[in-house]
Amino acid sequence: MHVTDLIRKKRDGRELERSEIQFLIDGYTRDAIPDYQMSAWLMSVLWRGMTRAELAALTESMLHSGQVLDLSDLPAPKVDKHSTGGVGDKTSLVLAAVVAAGGLCVPMISGRGLGHTGGTLDKLESIPGFNVNLSATVFRRVLSQCGAAMIGQTAEIAPADKRIYSLRDVTGTVESPYLICASIMSKKLAEGIDALVLDVKTGSGAFMKSEEDAAFLAELMVETGQRLGKRTVALITGMDQPLGRAVGNSLEVAECIDVLNGGGPKDLRELCLVLCAWMFLLGGRVNSVEDGERLAQEIIASGRGLEKFREMIRLQGGNAAVIDDPRLLPRASHQIDIPCPAAGFVSAVMCEQIGTAGVLLGGGREKKEDAIDHAVGIMVHKKPGDKVAAGEPLCTVHYNDATHLERARPLIQQSYAIEPAFTGTIRPLVRRIIGDEPRKILTAEA
Amino acid sequence: MHVTDLIRKKRDGRELERSEIQFLIDGYTRDAIPDYQMSAWLMSVLWRGMTRAELAALTESMLHSGQVLDLSDLPAPKVDKHSTGGVGDKTSLVLAAVVAAGGLCVPMISGRGLGHTGGTLDKLESIPGFNVNLSATVFRRVLSQCGAAMIGQTAEIAPADKRIYSLRDVTGTVESPYLICASIMSKKLAEGIDALVLDVKTGSGAFMKSEEDAAFLAELMVETGQRLGKRTVALITGMDQPLGRAVGNSLEVAECIDVLNGGGPKDLRELCLVLCAWMFLLGGRVNSVEDGERLAQEIIASGRGLEKFREMIRLQGGNAAVIDDPRLLPRASHQIDIPCPAAGFVSAVMCEQIGTAGVLLGGGREKKEDAIDHAVGIMVHKKPGDKVAAGEPLCTVHYNDATHLERARPLIQQSYAIEPAFTGTIRPLVRRIIGDEPRKILTAEA
Repeated sequence: MHVTDLIRKKRDGRELERSEIQFLIDGYTRDAIPDYQMSAWLMSVLWRGMTRAELAALTESMLHSGQVLDLSDLPAPKVDKHSTGGVGDKTSLVLAAVVAAGGLCVPMISGRGLGHTGGTLDKLESIPGFNVNLSATVFRRVLSQCGAAMIGQTAEIAPADKRIYSLRDVTGTVESPYLICASIMSKKLAEGIDALVLDVKTGSGAFMKSEEDAAFLAELMVETGQRLGKRTVALITGMDQPLGRAVGNSLEVAECIDVLNGGGPKDLRELCLVLCAWMFLLGGRVNSVEDGERLAQEIIASGRGLEKFREMIRLQGGNAAVIDDPRLLPRASHQIDIPCPAAGFVSAVMCEQIGTAGVLLGGGREKKEDAIDHAVGIMVHKKPGDKVAAGEPLCTVHYNDATHLERARPLIQQSYAIEPAFTGTIRPLVRRIIGDEPRKILTAEA
Repeated sequence: MHVTDLIRKKRDGRELERSEIQFLIDGYTRDAIPDYQMSAWLMSVLWRGMTRAELAALTESMLHSGQVLDLSDLPAPKVDKHSTGGVGDKTSLVLAAVVAAGGLCVPMISGRGLGHTGGTLDKLESIPGFNVNLSATVFRRVLSQCGAAMIGQTAEIAPADKRIYSLRDVTGTVESPYLICASIMSKKLAEGIDALVLDVKTGSGAFMKSEEDAAFLAELMVETGQRLGKRTVALITGMDQPLGRAVGNSLEVAECIDVLNGGGPKDLRELCLVLCAWMFLLGGRVNSVEDGERLAQEIIASGRGLEKFREMIRLQGGNAAVIDDPRLLPRASHQIDIPCPAAGFVSAVMCEQIGTAGVLLGGGREKKEDAIDHAVGIMVHKKPGDKVAAGEPLCTVHYNDATHLERARPLIQQSYAIEPAFTGTIRPLVRRIIGDEPRKILTAEA
């Protein structure tokens, strides 16, 4: 088998065999295939796309390039959720607690924030002492003890993806939905899960701006998951405004505690409930989404979700007292309100700007190696459709450094659009469900 | 300027600025841009193509990546010919001699054979003592003394092309007509020529199998040459059967001497005359192709072409006595005829097979580093349309090694198709002229 022939085959739009894709990924992982051949092949994939069989083979080869967790000795079904990333998107923390409290096992391997979107690991690390770098042994022990554990990607998980992702970043091959799908799914399926719920964001603050692009990526991921024997469903959800009100690591953890206490902003609460419901359904805990939502509500109302979060924090070395007193989370030394310049209605809160402002405050990374300030962030008080008086605070900025504030403030001001009357429409958060036909989900188990 | 942005720009089908292409080629030549980014960009070019302005900028950047000969102190117009390669294609030797004898200057930088096609340098090196590795100083001296000199590409000529060509070879990016054009034209224009005649081969034995593909490549090269201020014309010529009768280095040199003596096979003689005519026309020596052919005929008839060839051989260190006694060229120790299996007419002589058989005899290279046997080859006696009796020799194989003969023989036998009656048509060798409108050629001088 010659690498050049495989590049030419894909370049000419022909379908590669499973063994040919395996040869490429294995060779690249072992350094037997150089970067310049892999990048030419990746560009051919971006050009020609892949068949669903090729995509499943690529995902499988990347998945098996490293360690695949075997959690089969844990009796509960293993279910996870993955989000393509957004601003104020903090559902993972709530989901892990509620779904574990509902009797399923949630082995979550998450990422860090980069660009204008936040990362689950950064949020967790704002809890004093919380350790996201557990060994495989400790990860397994926490899972067996409390049903949920949240860690970062280790070097052993899908090393082919790590190398290919770095190469894509510098060769203009990031944007292929096929390569995005293989990257996400190879990492997630390495967790040893039985089922996966995907939260594919669409809108101005999402990677996929159009709903069509989001739906296409979602279909690829759902079919790939199913082909590899996992129950998989995708929810296309809106990311045209920040999710919830908190943007910033400590602030978001506190908002999750609010949700687990039965409060929190309506949009965040609702999305958490529907994602929990799908995790319960795919994990076989309930027979319908409606039953799943009811179960999630009961778990929150009974306080069992909050207790599960406390237990997980404790088992991962964190200070669980933050549950009862969120002021123990890092707090910024200054707060300042951003007043509304004129009376009217909020017609838009552009979340890419809000996310970037959060980064400029020090709460995210401009470069991979940047340290972050967990305390800073933005509390969004007014959202699209809200009536607002002149001078009334649109949001409150939590900051530690006045020069950072000055860089972020104009972005925050620009992110708000105020109009005399609200003429827009507030669309439902969940736009579409992909892969929800019960037959499809059931046959995927075969 | 970021390389990744330039890859994405081409990937998305947008036009690159001249300065952007220059940045890429300069950076790659200086090792500031790694292979993996260049290969992704090359694949994007293969995918999206280039505008004529981009192609001219690419060719110009590659041309100026190294030394560009300045022959402006030589008074005669400088004209060269380039062929895209074929089997038995030995016109360069005849052309250099005749056109120099006609008063023009022919600074020819040629290549070696690879694959089933031969190379001018290998043919020249079958003349004992002939040196194709002249320094720039000696090259210029030979040119000023006799008007023609023939050498190999030096490390100083278009180094960007050398690196890009090696990378294309292993990344599935050879087949782009744009990249082929830039590669050929950057090397040819580095010769310091005023005008260029392109012989673009089409047919089963050519790189471009279809006439449409050949014409497209020809148009790209003609326009690129004209945009860079050189008179350029392309002849699309047939390569469905070997050109002339000799295939093999020594045998081909002897056939060239035949042509310069006023003999030689008709097809070869005719193609040499028409190519000379175009070189004379573009070099301003005559006012029409007809006048050019007449001049070439006169030069051959008077013996001045042969004398010029003798002079060039002598100045490049070769044994000029081969002119009078071609038996001084390396001769194979054995000859064997390939008999015709049945009476009838030759309907085809597949030249890719004949070319490959020549390589198997030891006359060409399977790998770049292979040594070659200048003596071996094939003399083709019967060509399409010829009547042939059963047992009559179709061709004679000149060989030194019986095991090589056994590898080559089946290929040679298969290359002949014999039918009871000849029903095909013999098409004219010159299929199309591209860039011959006098206006176009004249305006290109501006």
